[in-house]
Amino acid sequence: MSDAVSPLASPFPTLPAIAGVTPRIARAGYKDWGRCDLTYVELSEGTEVAGVFTKNICCSSEVELGREQVKAGHARALIVNAGNSNAFTGYRGREAVEQIMAQVAAHLGCAPDEVFVSSTGVIGVPLPKDKAREGVARVLTEVPASWEDAARTISTTDTFPKGTTATAIVGDTKVTLSAIIKGSGMIAPNMATMLGYIFTDGAIAPAFLQELLGAATERSFNCITVDSDTSTSDTVLAFATGKAGNARIEGYDSPGADAFAAALSDVCLQLAHLVVRDGEGAQKFIEIRVTGAVSDTSARRIGLAIANSPLVKTAIAGEDANWGRVVMAVGKAGEPADRDRLAIRFGDVWVARDGLAVAGYDEAPVAAHLKGQDIRIGVDIGLGDGTATVWTCDLTHGYISINADYRS
Amino acid sequence: MSDAVSPLASPFPTLPAIAGVTPRIARAGYKDWGRCDLTYVELSEGTEVAGVFTKNICCSSEVELGREQVKAGHARALIVNAGNSNAFTGYRGREAVEQIMAQVAAHLGCAPDEVFVSSTGVIGVPLPKDKAREGVARVLTEVPASWEDAARTISTTDTFPKGTTATAIVGDTKVTLSAIIKGSGMIAPNMATMLGYIFTDGAIAPAFLQELLGAATERSFNCITVDSDTSTSDTVLAFATGKAGNARIEGYDSPGADAFAAALSDVCLQLAHLVVRDGEGAQKFIEIRVTGAVSDTSARRIGLAIANSPLVKTAIAGEDANWGRVVMAVGKAGEPADRDRLAIRFGDVWVARDGLAVAGYDEAPVAAHLKGQDIRIGVDIGLGDGTATVWTCDLTHGYISINADYRS
Repeated sequence: MSDAVSPLASPFPTLPAIAGVTPRIARAGYKDWGRCDLTYVELSEGTEVAGVFTKNICCSSEVELGREQVKAGHARALIVNAGNSNAFTGYRGREAVEQIMAQVAAHLGCAPDEVFVSSTGVIGVPLPKDKAREGVARVLTEVPASWEDAARTISTTDTFPKGTTATAIVGDTKVTLSAIIKGSGMIAPNMATMLGYIFTDGAIAPAFLQELLGAATERSFNCITVDSDTSTSDTVLAFATGKAGNARIEGYDSPGADAFAAALSDVCLQLAHLVVRDGEGAQKFIEIRVTGAVSDTSARRIGLAIANSPLVKTAIAGEDANWGRVVMAVGKAGEPADRDRLAIRFGDVWVARDGLAVAGYDEAPVAAHLKGQDIRIGVDIGLGDGTATVWTCDLTHGYISINADYRS
Repeated sequence: MSDAVSPLASPFPTLPAIAGVTPRIARAGYKDWGRCDLTYVELSEGTEVAGVFTKNICCSSEVELGREQVKAGHARALIVNAGNSNAFTGYRGREAVEQIMAQVAAHLGCAPDEVFVSSTGVIGVPLPKDKAREGVARVLTEVPASWEDAARTISTTDTFPKGTTATAIVGDTKVTLSAIIKGSGMIAPNMATMLGYIFTDGAIAPAFLQELLGAATERSFNCITVDSDTSTSDTVLAFATGKAGNARIEGYDSPGADAFAAALSDVCLQLAHLVVRDGEGAQKFIEIRVTGAVSDTSARRIGLAIANSPLVKTAIAGEDANWGRVVMAVGKAGEPADRDRLAIRFGDVWVARDGLAVAGYDEAPVAAHLKGQDIRIGVDIGLGDGTATVWTCDLTHGYISINADYRS
């Protein structure tokens, strides 16, 4: 955890315990620091799992293994190492992961591929096997930790711990989701990978959980950007212990499937927003709403082109209603658009319409909106029914300071 | 022109006059400034032209018109307005351009579509027709200006004037190219569009000139990036007066075609480098050489993914040999790559190979290289024969200051 807390930070909420889920933390000493850096979450027998992973082709061993493990759909434990990402470390990095999987599996009496491992931190240095072995041995028998402590322990350059919760009524059973996440840039100096973990006591078939998680990801984690860079380790896992006692959700026709899907979507969106709110150097949270595109996919691409534009992000940092930069970003997105049908708003005020500045628009509410912390930009393409919302933060001197003003 | 000159600036070279080309400058007063802001280049009868334009779909009227004009291949004049880009101004912007074309055409007794117009500066404000009319009336009869004065007059946020020259022996005739360019971000606060103009006394068929210019652009202007943003007005035009007296170059089989092509390529590359050297906030010029990709196209995409990565660019600003960020950028490019075959060098020292840090590489020459102004990064993908070289600059506090620390 970093010293200076993001001005966009929100307090850690009260997260309910999830039956069948027990977090524990310890210090493996992956870096020369006093904090805990090893998180172990024990999952009761019968826990099912789904996961989404980075599309970065140079991914870590943890991601390669995780992709295979979720196919089987069974999980008994999660281990998260902080301080060393174990990425770009070849066979030695893979050996370290397999050692952890075997060690935890022996303790729990489960198969090694029911043990999920994530690592985040410096790259190019194989995770030290001796520190991992000793740390895991300790953490397995630690007293249970709070969600907030677990959220702190998986963090690296984050400036505040991040968690959220939601509930759903499935049949007549209340199902709860509690979730934690870390990440503050797509990658930071020490690879500030996004790692998110969702735990539910609901019973749900892993194939359907995977489908729901994939759909929720499209509208949450895949709709945020801090700096357009993509970590080699990004991972979101959803674990379902089934302890709530609901009739197992098998598909959309199962009772409560929609309610569960909505709760999962909500959790993913909250987690995604928390990552943006801890964006490196962020001073403002920016929502970009695109309407009127030829398709939802096209709308999202346009939204991300705007969200990734350094010139748009610096304009917002400068509290400048520079709609010309938004036009530029729409035009470079490579998606259908018509300059003379474009409309752009800041907050609730349309500043450009039909390819022209709106003559005599009221600048006072625009200026007031841009001075705030939560900025909303609207773009109507004027061609179709496609819509999307994406989120990002502004680009400030803080980002440069975090990423350039240091020596490794 | 800005006050603080880029540390990467190079002095304006001695550019030869081109027979049949006469630059003139004047002050139209598009902004409230004392400098000249209107450039007129008169071209002798029979001048042929080729051009490449921004791919930004929200392009200016000037670009829309220019694309049509180059198809005819004839040119008698170029007008460049600085201080107002006339972009996103609807029919009123287009009327202003057409007025200029008609006014110059009447003076020269040529067709309006032989008059090329570019505009650069603030957007969303139609080019004032009265100022344009009076400015054009004055500039048409001004005394000839130097190339350096013309280069200064087309500039907006540039910190130094930019020009270059080359010669080629075509048959037994010496052919000369002189060229000027402006641009310091893909777009700056006031839309620092890239506008480049190449003038030659060579005789060359416009269709073949277009082919050569397109090919040269692929390896020059399309291989540079300052901030990944694409102006709505980017334009490069090549004008050939034919006054050198060479046998007209009709295609690759014509005598001297290769020599002319090489000179044109060289001019384009020099102009492209000059734009990067004036990149907003740039402290270092970065060359990224990609080898071993599955194709040249793939290599360029990987190179641009590295060059556009804020994390790579801030690492270079921090003089940090952070090869992990280069790995990340390779992996997010969406091109074939194999983590375990990747090799990365800074300067001439390979720091990672076969997916691992090179054990015990000599850090002293790497650190010394990164302290310099001209940084070279090499990436070998290890899969094929595809190669590309791209150029960018570092991302510094200066970029944020230029683009965020102001109010419009």
